Amino acid sequence: MAKIRIGQGIDFHQLTEGRAFWLGGVAVPHHKGALGHSDADVLLHAICDAMLGALGLGDIGVHFPDTDNAYKNIDSKILLERCAALIAGKGYQVVNVDSTLCLQAPKIKPYVPQMQEVIARILHITTADVSIKATTTEKLGFVGREEGVVALASVLLEQQD
Amino acid sequence: MAKIRIGQGIDFHQLTEGRAFWLGGVAVPHHKGALGHSDADVLLHAICDAMLGALGLGDIGVHFPDTDNAYKNIDSKILLERCAALIAGKGYQVVNVDSTLCLQAPKIKPYVPQMQEVIARILHITTADVSIKATTTEKLGFVGREEGVVALASVLLEQQD
Amino acid sequence: MAKIRIGQGIDFHQLTEGRAFWLGGVAVPHHKGALGHSDADVLLHAICDAMLGALGLGDIGVHFPDTDNAYKNIDSKILLERCAALIAGKGYQVVNVDSTLCLQAPKIKPYVPQMQEVIARILHITTADVSIKATTTEKLGFVGREEGVVALASVLLEQQD
Repeated sequence: MAKIRIGQGIDFHQLTEGRAFWLGGVAVPHHKGALGHSDADVLLHAICDAMLGALGLGDIGVHFPDTDNAYKNIDSKILLERCAALIAGKGYQVVNVDSTLCLQAPKIKPYVPQMQEVIARILHITTADVSIKATTTEKLGFVGREEGVVALASVLLEQQD
Repeated sequence: MAKIRIGQGIDFHQLTEGRAFWLGGVAVPHHKGALGHSDADVLLHAICDAMLGALGLGDIGVHFPDTDNAYKNIDSKILLERCAALIAGKGYQVVNVDSTLCLQAPKIKPYVPQMQEVIARILHITTADVSIKATTTEKLGFVGREEGVVALASVLLEQQD
Repeated sequence: MAKIRIGQGIDFHQLTEGRAFWLGGVAVPHHKGALGHSDADVLLHAICDAMLGALGLGDIGVHFPDTDNAYKNIDSKILLERCAALIAGKGYQVVNVDSTLCLQAPKIKPYVPQMQEVIARILHITTADVSIKATTTEKLGFVGREEGVVALASVLLEQQD
């Protein structure tokens, strides 16, 4: 395998009233939250998928099936930790993560530094190596109607010395 | 040009009853298939686009126009072979491919190893260098309504010695 | 920080009658244009976001808030110049940009060389290092209904000597 690899991930969740809204390992105050078998943290899921994908290790659905009760309401930070262990086991580390949350509301800017800290700590990188961007869809589509949220992530991995 | 380059691709196709469903060079059993001028293999098209894009060689629509009868119902593996030849002609090879299929049904997991073999053989890389992930959109949007399918791909290229 | 970094961006704009349609720094003749606080150049915005994201510098909304009158109707080429200055200030340069415009109409192929020239000049790279691809969504979703336009971009950055 090459010393440098890239990965990409995309994840989708429905939004519903009365669920905590976990994004990047942080509970963001909002009247809606993401629906899912786990805590439905769309951003951590996209990052997990990008890390797994960079090394051809399958996807989050393969590793943590939503039909398995072990993952019911699980904290997605645990899933990210497992993905970090999987890539470390292959001799790789994350160089940088870049990601975008597509959601109409709420504004996540105040929570980004905390998300960066959570993710950087798990991946053993600095917060400058964890980028979390956000955009609305300008009211377009299911994101614009606040029915759902989408996250995209790209990661660059390098082989450890 | 630099020794390392990245590319990205995204492709969309409508789903319709009574078409074969080609994904990653494999005919996946399903009551619907993707509609298109070629065999409408959304995954191979996204990978082709990412390879072309990494070297600024245009896109799949430029190279294989859907107004050209030469490409009517063509096997997209042939298009991928041509893209592989184009990047080899520029002195580059694929380091790794990461991709995600967004589709509500069917489950593609059983077919992924065969897709990896097809793509790896054409690109002269190992199956571990070809990642194919899948996600539903949690019933959201045209993918969730099973009206369409989307594929995203990222590739890393390096200059050959 | 590592010598090589990747970034990704995605941007969305509504289409409306009677607006100029700025794409990649070029006014594309069309009966509709993109709606936004700035000139709403979805492609340049996605590239800006990818450049900022690669270095963890926030996003376009953080740097150029749409609540700030300074950015009202601003030419997005100015925003791209500022992003280029930001990454140069961090000691990085762009290796290559790959992007895809998702729009149902018009065909942008005739305008791509001019877009490449505009972007390459601002980023101090060659036109071969600026890839602009296009795809329809095959009439699916808000892009297919010509209600909106989406752009995705990936960038590879390297540290300058």
